[in-house]
Amino acid sequence: MESPIEAMTETKQMVFKFGNGTADADKSYKNLLGGKGANLAEMSSIGLPVPAGFTISTKCCAHYSGNAGNWPDGLEADVRAGIAHLEETVGAKFGDVNKPLLVSVRSGAAVSMPGMMDTVLNLGLNDEAVIGLASSFNNERFAYDSYRRFIDMFGNVVMDISHDDFEDAIDELKSNRGVSNDTDLSASDLKTLVETYKEIYRKHTGGDFPNDPFEQLRLSINAVFTSWDSNRAIKYRQINKITGLIGTAVNVQAMVFGNKGEGSGTGVLFTRDPSTGENKLYGEFLINAQGEDVVAGIRTPEDISQMSAEFPAAYEQLVETTQRLESHYKDMQDIEFTIQDGKLFLLQTRNGKRTGAAALKIAVELVQDGTISKEVAVRDLVEPGHLDQLLHPQFADPQGYAADVIATGLPASPGAAVGQVVFSAEAAEKAKAAEKKVILVRTETSPEDVGGMNAAEGILTSRGGMTSHAAVVARGWGKPCVAGCSDVVINASQTAFVCDGVTIAEGDWISINGGTGEVVKGSQPLKAAKMTGEFDTFMSWVDEFRTMGVRTNADSPADAQRARDFGAEGIGLCRTEHMFFEGDRIDNVRGMILANTVDERREYLDKLLPYQKEDFKGIFTAMQGLPVTIRLLDPPLHEFLPHEEKDQIEMAEKMGVSLETVQDKVRSLDEFNPMLGHRGCRLGITYPEITEMQARAILEAAVELSQEGVEVLPEIMVPLVGTVEEFSNQRAVIERIAALVFEEKGAKVEYLIGTMIEIPRAALVADKIAAHADFFSFGTNDLTQMAFGYSRDDAGKFLPSYIENKILADDPFQTLDIEGVGQLIRMGTERGRSTDPGLKVGICGEHGGDPASVHFCFEVGMDYVSCSPYRVPIARLAAAQANLQQK
Amino acid sequence: MESPIEAMTETKQMVFKFGNGTADADKSYKNLLGGKGANLAEMSSIGLPVPAGFTISTKCCAHYSGNAGNWPDGLEADVRAGIAHLEETVGAKFGDVNKPLLVSVRSGAAVSMPGMMDTVLNLGLNDEAVIGLASSFNNERFAYDSYRRFIDMFGNVVMDISHDDFEDAIDELKSNRGVSNDTDLSASDLKTLVETYKEIYRKHTGGDFPNDPFEQLRLSINAVFTSWDSNRAIKYRQINKITGLIGTAVNVQAMVFGNKGEGSGTGVLFTRDPSTGENKLYGEFLINAQGEDVVAGIRTPEDISQMSAEFPAAYEQLVETTQRLESHYKDMQDIEFTIQDGKLFLLQTRNGKRTGAAALKIAVELVQDGTISKEVAVRDLVEPGHLDQLLHPQFADPQGYAADVIATGLPASPGAAVGQVVFSAEAAEKAKAAEKKVILVRTETSPEDVGGMNAAEGILTSRGGMTSHAAVVARGWGKPCVAGCSDVVINASQTAFVCDGVTIAEGDWISINGGTGEVVKGSQPLKAAKMTGEFDTFMSWVDEFRTMGVRTNADSPADAQRARDFGAEGIGLCRTEHMFFEGDRIDNVRGMILANTVDERREYLDKLLPYQKEDFKGIFTAMQGLPVTIRLLDPPLHEFLPHEEKDQIEMAEKMGVSLETVQDKVRSLDEFNPMLGHRGCRLGITYPEITEMQARAILEAAVELSQEGVEVLPEIMVPLVGTVEEFSNQRAVIERIAALVFEEKGAKVEYLIGTMIEIPRAALVADKIAAHADFFSFGTNDLTQMAFGYSRDDAGKFLPSYIENKILADDPFQTLDIEGVGQLIRMGTERGRSTDPGLKVGICGEHGGDPASVHFCFEVGMDYVSCSPYRVPIARLAAAQANLQQK
Repeated sequence: MESPIEAMTETKQMVFKFGNGTADADKSYKNLLGGKGANLAEMSSIGLPVPAGFTISTKCCAHYSGNAGNWPDGLEADVRAGIAHLEETVGAKFGDVNKPLLVSVRSGAAVSMPGMMDTVLNLGLNDEAVIGLASSFNNERFAYDSYRRFIDMFGNVVMDISHDDFEDAIDELKSNRGVSNDTDLSASDLKTLVETYKEIYRKHTGGDFPNDPFEQLRLSINAVFTSWDSNRAIKYRQINKITGLIGTAVNVQAMVFGNKGEGSGTGVLFTRDPSTGENKLYGEFLINAQGEDVVAGIRTPEDISQMSAEFPAAYEQLVETTQRLESHYKDMQDIEFTIQDGKLFLLQTRNGKRTGAAALKIAVELVQDGTISKEVAVRDLVEPGHLDQLLHPQFADPQGYAADVIATGLPASPGAAVGQVVFSAEAAEKAKAAEKKVILVRTETSPEDVGGMNAAEGILTSRGGMTSHAAVVARGWGKPCVAGCSDVVINASQTAFVCDGVTIAEGDWISINGGTGEVVKGSQPLKAAKMTGEFDTFMSWVDEFRTMGVRTNADSPADAQRARDFGAEGIGLCRTEHMFFEGDRIDNVRGMILANTVDERREYLDKLLPYQKEDFKGIFTAMQGLPVTIRLLDPPLHEFLPHEEKDQIEMAEKMGVSLETVQDKVRSLDEFNPMLGHRGCRLGITYPEITEMQARAILEAAVELSQEGVEVLPEIMVPLVGTVEEFSNQRAVIERIAALVFEEKGAKVEYLIGTMIEIPRAALVADKIAAHADFFSFGTNDLTQMAFGYSRDDAGKFLPSYIENKILADDPFQTLDIEGVGQLIRMGTERGRSTDPGLKVGICGEHGGDPASVHFCFEVGMDYVSCSPYRVPIARLAAAQANLQQK
Repeated sequence: MESPIEAMTETKQMVFKFGNGTADADKSYKNLLGGKGANLAEMSSIGLPVPAGFTISTKCCAHYSGNAGNWPDGLEADVRAGIAHLEETVGAKFGDVNKPLLVSVRSGAAVSMPGMMDTVLNLGLNDEAVIGLASSFNNERFAYDSYRRFIDMFGNVVMDISHDDFEDAIDELKSNRGVSNDTDLSASDLKTLVETYKEIYRKHTGGDFPNDPFEQLRLSINAVFTSWDSNRAIKYRQINKITGLIGTAVNVQAMVFGNKGEGSGTGVLFTRDPSTGENKLYGEFLINAQGEDVVAGIRTPEDISQMSAEFPAAYEQLVETTQRLESHYKDMQDIEFTIQDGKLFLLQTRNGKRTGAAALKIAVELVQDGTISKEVAVRDLVEPGHLDQLLHPQFADPQGYAADVIATGLPASPGAAVGQVVFSAEAAEKAKAAEKKVILVRTETSPEDVGGMNAAEGILTSRGGMTSHAAVVARGWGKPCVAGCSDVVINASQTAFVCDGVTIAEGDWISINGGTGEVVKGSQPLKAAKMTGEFDTFMSWVDEFRTMGVRTNADSPADAQRARDFGAEGIGLCRTEHMFFEGDRIDNVRGMILANTVDERREYLDKLLPYQKEDFKGIFTAMQGLPVTIRLLDPPLHEFLPHEEKDQIEMAEKMGVSLETVQDKVRSLDEFNPMLGHRGCRLGITYPEITEMQARAILEAAVELSQEGVEVLPEIMVPLVGTVEEFSNQRAVIERIAALVFEEKGAKVEYLIGTMIEIPRAALVADKIAAHADFFSFGTNDLTQMAFGYSRDDAGKFLPSYIENKILADDPFQTLDIEGVGQLIRMGTERGRSTDPGLKVGICGEHGGDPASVHFCFEVGMDYVSCSPYRVPIARLAAAQANLQQK
């Protein structure tokens, strides 16, 4: 984080007070006090209306976890001092029969974690305090309603009693009283209910409901500490790759009451629209309710704009305050507030989660209005994942599916998703493992569902609002979500839902539009995303702060052009074998493979030459003025032969040979472990005529174009090199052909000869290889396979269980394994440069488009990363951020 | 070499004289003067009768090679000074018409290299000198015969004229003269022949035969220099792995004449019998001949013992001289000598090549007679390869079967085997039961074949390399194996194979030589290997100088016992999966694999437990008092399922499931790259119940035996670890089971838990793994596969061409690749010990029995090497030599 962590971790202070325009801390204390605690302190210190409170530091949580649930020495006294401070500030006393102090207890880590403990409200109520609450608010019914809610919440959150047990009791009471709404119960009914609730508590815990407010507080604090290590919190951190935190802070804060009557209310809002980035308040508001009611989605809230009519003064204050908060934090804020008797209180502020489109718009507008610099915008306001969302597909024809729309819910997280319906997180995870696309349909989601939510293409809920759990989480991930779609009725056995008279069973295909809230029958066609004007503006700033190059992996002129449009500065990997499959080229490839002599092989290669040359001309032309790295033939030859008998028969007929000849060749090329077999430069060494043909195609194309005035920068890359002798062998072949071509054409072009570093041994002897190679390009796919000994085609059998059991933090084929594979990359780069300080070094594995891996490549000192065309903007941003963060 | 190389390489002297009881150098000058030159100097300096001469240093050759065939400054003058020295010593003059000096010119590098230039004799003869030779020897015929021989030899050796051209001329002359023997030609005939030879010389070279002796000498010296870079010399160095030499020396020496008449002769001898080591002269002798005649085999020589009758005085001097040479060189000598007019001259001495049996006998006897110390005997007199010969049966007459060799494959497991061909493991077992000797011929072998492999005399495969399944298993048993013999094509019905046009049907006799890779038609006679008494004596000395431990790879009590008999100090690798195939255990293994639930799997594992436990008891008992490292299940599960449909049907019936069920499971377990797939600890992590069963079997066996008083030292080894988390996971499972077993049995045993280091990543993070592991064992087979990216089962397609093209110096599966894989081993060891200085480190790959690799393991500081039982003595010797050489 941006705070002076070192200094803070030295402090012995365990409890930090805030309120009344002062605070013991500020927003820089995020690691020690969590995001919520630090921001409460900050808001208090700049004079905003925050109910007084105190925060127990994350170090106390760490101590609790590491010491069998014991508090550090002195914490008890500090907490009591904190309560005394509240009593003094608020003018009330804990458990007092006249004017009782009530508090809320909330968790809050340095990174927002919906996976942790729910809030406990109204703590401090007991048989005496309830009387004080009734008299001080002059509302006995309100007091007992609060009391019974508190017992329910405390019982549920702190003591793990099912909420349903309490609900059953209230339902029974309502039925006895012949009423249908909670609000129809009288004060005396609620008094009775309190006793019933206490009985339920006793039954489940074996002890009495604690009457001592300090005991209530102690248990609640412990529950927060314990929640840090709960399964769902661990799972959440895992999915979101949150590491390096020591624990959660605990915020204890004087209660304010949004449920005090019609003059009170509570709400959540974003200072800008988190879906589009539009600069207007965006949020929801409930009259006469406590904060949790908005998030829980039990009552449907009103739009925040309604407040101006109902609470004009408070609304005006809210607008002014939120603007102040945004200027202060220099970012769009996500704010929770309560209005008690018309008076505004802020309960929380934090940087708001947003979609990719919103992130770009907000970043650009904040720079344009002078709030932040371009540097800050690039470094902090847009995440690489935001760009990924922008590049996500949309529906090809949103008008076309109108007849199939079966319901419309809230457009909670934009983007289009198509999949088969599943009704549980578990089913979603299973389907993902089986490479199926699914839409997770739930009444509502909870933190326990995050695994399945992550696995699904999109999420559809029948309850909950725009800031419900499903909506917040989905937006964070850029995953399409339709929320609160009450037309969707899931049947009891969770095997189907009915909607608009249509039954959609488990396994049926549906499509959801997270930008409109539409739910559509069947699998609707998708199209690629479109970039907004802010995209170009922002990306131009990105490049101002980027020092490392970004190239693309492209095998065709069309891909090359697309990548160039996305800002690619060259091709880092052009795979030549893809060209071998097009049209009737494959026949010549197969002829070459069947050939029994070098001469016969050359005959077929001669026929392939003009095709390859045309391919290269197309790519060179698309990338003119930019370097193009072409990898020589890599896959084993058997990949070009048919393996089904009917295809073999067809091939035999076409080639005019016997089926047996084809099958014999297939058998003779068959390998136990093709990944480790006769491929890469091993082919070029045993069949130098293949390398000769490819070198000739590349260099003839280059010379001819260059004669036409096209600037061509070819870089020939030898794959799968493990020894310097392999490289020298192939280099000699290429140079021999180059000399011939240049003589034949009467002209030369500049070109480089380099190698993939993708064999562990190559990294170990990189100093030797660098004496002969003009460049290195790390092929991290193969390097990962061989360093780990994982075949990526087979690892699906154990990788999921490895990640689940935390044997691996990430799939190393997605995110570079810095600890292991990273050592080989660092070693290869350093040793290569020890021989040739000017050695050009890049990466062309899948990792070249993964932000964390891009950071590592920057740190190692690579000249460029290369990735698929759609990830080029992401890599550009990651490279710029790596550079800015290093500063 | 043992000489002070550094000092020598500083000298500017280019020509070193010897003769007349003095010399400019001695035997320590081997690098500078070659073996021959150094020994001539040595013999001269200790007063032995050596014809005077001089040696041009190897540095001159290096200069010649590096400077386009120019001599270093001053060499010309030094050579002329050398000749002047000879003229003075011998009392003759170069090219003199009265008393001409004749010399021989020979090459001689620091290591004996038959691949280099032949000798030129009688150099100095010209039209004048021949008159002088005739008069000084009073024999005109002899002089002209020498002259025409010289022109032939010079023309052939120096100018590359075919010897046949000269032979044709002499044949024509004989036919004209109507005689049949060269000796029937008169002096005048030979004079004519000299002119004819000069004409032939002129025709081929375009110039006159050089009359100037210095010109003859210059050209001959250049021919020697040039021969250093000839193809055959390069190939010879390559095959024999001779590296680090800078060039050849040139020896110019005054001629002595074994062909001067009946009082002269020439011979070669060994001071002891090189086949048996018996202490008596062993050699051959030709009267009235020059040295080359003995080697060339044109005339049949007499046994050296005959000399005592024919040249009693010279023989006596020879016996005395050779004894003196042996004492001086402290080793059996290979000597060339000439007798001129009854006077003995020594032309060369060197340490003689010998068989394994002879090496042992000579070493032991030289120690016993006080000539050398035990240390020298162990360090210098026996090579590890000598022991290898001793341990396997051999062909009685390997030269005799040359005409019947039908193919040559890889020499995968040494020794000779003879038997009738069978094509299935089943047939081999049947034949064995019927007491027939068979050779099992398979495309490749799999664990299912082990029964048949064991039953066969030898194994021949058409696919797979030096570390293929067949090779590894065969070496483990000391059973001859020729692997990867691609010329062998088995027909579809598996009733015959075709090879080199010859069809070998089932039941036909063949012989295989596992030491050379030869496949031979018919039943060739064998001789048994014999352990002599010297073996035990010598090996006891070996152990006196050995500091590194030697263990064995053994999977059965019988193997364990054999290895212990060979001196193994423990088991370094016990593969548990081999036990899974025996008897009806495989049914339970297959049941476990088919199981759909953990409980079902446990059921079958419970049935396997008693078998495994008995296996371990057997091995522990055989190795009592010594450590036994047991590797947990390693191969992928599909290796245990049948892949032929008929076997699948049989299995389905036996298991009471449908064929489809079996086939579905086979398909679902099928992998693209099984080497990089679901195997090793990945199995133990996804199916912890397998690890549990194996840990239980090991520890129950250990505790029960220990309760019976057997000392048991189990070391449990987790295979294929790439991350510390994998190891910790399996360690936890093992420790949990250990606690249970110890509680159940009421007793404990000491045991270790360690890991194979065989994944490149494991070497990189060895510091982390060592924090949890008790020992490391380098699995260099897999480590080599992954570091190079070579599948050992597939590399046969390119490795031979790699070695031929010098891309690799050696097959890295035979000899450890120190440059690359060695770095990982060193890194793994050093990093492991950086965390745990006392970490036990060993090697259990095939390289553990390869002498060069053993040296490297010693250098890295390993505690032990482990190898197949038959290689234990070899590893012991290599380990002792590594230690002695380091001193």
